[in-house]
Amino acid sequence: MATVVKKFGGTSVGDVQRIKNVAALVKDFLDKQPGTRLVVVASAMAGETNRLIALAKSCVPSPDPRELDALLATGEETSIALLAMALIEQGVPAVSLTAEQVGISTDTRHNNAQITEIKSQRLEQVLSKGKVAVVAGFQGVDGDGNVTTLGRGGSDITAVAIAAELKADACYIYTDVEGVFSTDPRICPRAQYLKEVSHEEMLEMASLGAKVLHPRSVYFAMRYEVPLVVLSTFNPGPGTWIIKEEKLMEKPLVTGITYRMDEAKITVNKVPGGSKPLDLIFGRLAEHGILVDMITQSGVSKDSYDLSFTVPDEVSGQALEIAQQCVPELEAEGAHLERDIAKISVVGVGMRYHTGVAAKMFSVLAEENIDVQMIGTSEIKISVAVPRKYGEVAVRALHEKFIEMRPEVSVEK
Amino acid sequence: MATVVKKFGGTSVGDVQRIKNVAALVKDFLDKQPGTRLVVVASAMAGETNRLIALAKSCVPSPDPRELDALLATGEETSIALLAMALIEQGVPAVSLTAEQVGISTDTRHNNAQITEIKSQRLEQVLSKGKVAVVAGFQGVDGDGNVTTLGRGGSDITAVAIAAELKADACYIYTDVEGVFSTDPRICPRAQYLKEVSHEEMLEMASLGAKVLHPRSVYFAMRYEVPLVVLSTFNPGPGTWIIKEEKLMEKPLVTGITYRMDEAKITVNKVPGGSKPLDLIFGRLAEHGILVDMITQSGVSKDSYDLSFTVPDEVSGQALEIAQQCVPELEAEGAHLERDIAKISVVGVGMRYHTGVAAKMFSVLAEENIDVQMIGTSEIKISVAVPRKYGEVAVRALHEKFIEMRPEVSVEK
Repeated sequence: MATVVKKFGGTSVGDVQRIKNVAALVKDFLDKQPGTRLVVVASAMAGETNRLIALAKSCVPSPDPRELDALLATGEETSIALLAMALIEQGVPAVSLTAEQVGISTDTRHNNAQITEIKSQRLEQVLSKGKVAVVAGFQGVDGDGNVTTLGRGGSDITAVAIAAELKADACYIYTDVEGVFSTDPRICPRAQYLKEVSHEEMLEMASLGAKVLHPRSVYFAMRYEVPLVVLSTFNPGPGTWIIKEEKLMEKPLVTGITYRMDEAKITVNKVPGGSKPLDLIFGRLAEHGILVDMITQSGVSKDSYDLSFTVPDEVSGQALEIAQQCVPELEAEGAHLERDIAKISVVGVGMRYHTGVAAKMFSVLAEENIDVQMIGTSEIKISVAVPRKYGEVAVRALHEKFIEMRPEVSVEK
Repeated sequence: MATVVKKFGGTSVGDVQRIKNVAALVKDFLDKQPGTRLVVVASAMAGETNRLIALAKSCVPSPDPRELDALLATGEETSIALLAMALIEQGVPAVSLTAEQVGISTDTRHNNAQITEIKSQRLEQVLSKGKVAVVAGFQGVDGDGNVTTLGRGGSDITAVAIAAELKADACYIYTDVEGVFSTDPRICPRAQYLKEVSHEEMLEMASLGAKVLHPRSVYFAMRYEVPLVVLSTFNPGPGTWIIKEEKLMEKPLVTGITYRMDEAKITVNKVPGGSKPLDLIFGRLAEHGILVDMITQSGVSKDSYDLSFTVPDEVSGQALEIAQQCVPELEAEGAHLERDIAKISVVGVGMRYHTGVAAKMFSVLAEENIDVQMIGTSEIKISVAVPRKYGEVAVRALHEKFIEMRPEVSVEK
């Protein structure tokens, strides 16, 4: 008998009417596929978590993390109780279950806990009675019985973890978009909706800014080989299947074009050779919690080189200050900041099998007279830093040449 | 080391400012009595439970009881997390605990569960670390791990049950009044605030309409010999101690005058003798969930009598209908309803030791020309039914003669 997990985000359960719509959608699914063992994971109603955080902060300036988690957990407890009621009302036997009731164990990192174990016993008991288990996303319980929350993307992680534990046939992530697109349709109206992508591609696309799924949940799905489906609650179609690379029907050269428009680039001039300077600068940045993305060395001579790296623009001022503090110790010449940088990436598992992608990418950008400032690559991704003002032009041009017109370089299967 | 339970109702934690005030009150208490092992029980913020019920009913017309309980439980979970945050902020180590975390077991009657067991282990663990345990009132967990709620007065019952389990020195019930009064100050401005009453007196007074404490919690406190203190959150004074009768300093003849203004009286004329008619009428009323209070027989002849009884006015129409349906079966003469009845009671453990109270009561009412329609007595209470319009006059007259002027009949100790 098939086992399926369906996760509904905050927008999908945003008000009572939407909760009833989700119940109707679940009923419709079970009418069409009777006997399916179904776990539904729900987030807090949209805005509820922020309301609770504001409530806590109106009480104390910096809420105790344990108590903040206890408070936040009520958000999902509200939505699962309402959703279970709505299902029962529609004739679908259902039981709401908190993380504690399911047995979702986590470590003790409040507000950002990691799932360590899911006990399947209570879930199996509910499913074996033919009931839908409606599980609170985003929360867990630590070894001492304290409530924890999983941080951003937490409900997706709950759904994927349960799907992994139950060896579910698929984990459906219902959201407000119809699936994963080849790029952002707001920038590129000809963006295509993808039937399938590999976990690795999704991971590159998610971490590069495709907002559909949090990278943690994609990583989790990849690790436990859970087939994920992203689809719309409001207009449910086949959605995008996120599956093992080996199971992809096609392996196009480039699957998607992603971007981050809010980058900044810091350059430290005439850094003496050796690994010590790198250790110093990046160590200091890490101490301050600043995430460095692309790193390049240029103008390399016998004694020194220019070091450039990108950081999120919102922390670029702080990052520059740290770099400047390092300059005297390094005996470098100075550090300066260029804001308004965009990072554009082409992603596709097909790149594993073909090397023409980088050259093609530079040629497309050159045609548009876009200056490539930095380059970074992984096995299935090539990223470039370009001036922010050309970011959207670059996305559209790359999308046109790589995705709308299939490129002449064909994939060796 | 002293162990104390303090319970704060919905009004006391009605908003963030009030929660901070409760935290300050708790801190002040611990500053004055350092080392006290303290459990704080909190209700949901005032209005929150009603908001959640309305939310459920906007979703489905009759919410599943299990799911409604799961939803309602979030009300207390919110207030305990906020209160624990506020305590920690003020330098008082505190931990919020849900019923599940404490281990408050109940039966399975959703929305009206009875506590069957409280495990003290987690509480002891928290208290032994010198922390305040901030426990969710009103909720429990049944044998299968489902959340239950305790019904009306539930948070008081949680507090008393924990006090009983921990053999606490006292259980303080903080509310919006300064204590228990000798009668309702809104009716009788000279009502006196009582220093102490016995559990039995409080039980008679609570069930007769003194709104301070729910009878279930008083009964619980009596059974487990928990000293209760009722006092104001907003103007905390010594409050009223509710203690074992043997521990009362004084045993006044009459402790309080209580009333119910919304009664109705039904009379069935010429009911044939024997217990069968009583069985029929009161059986039918009970089947319909109608609570009968006072019962009297009058005009007794060889063959028949007139049967009168009081019911809450809101169900009097339904009760009359049931009585009338019984008339042919009973071969009685007819049934009629008098609405606008008030029930006035004098309560006091001193009555156990003296018999002059009833006579004195009738004399007071006769002086005011108030017609006594029915009489009911218990060991420590005498109640009369009078026309509603004289209800307040009766309360004031009885209060004056029994409480303001100590009556001439003295108590034999």
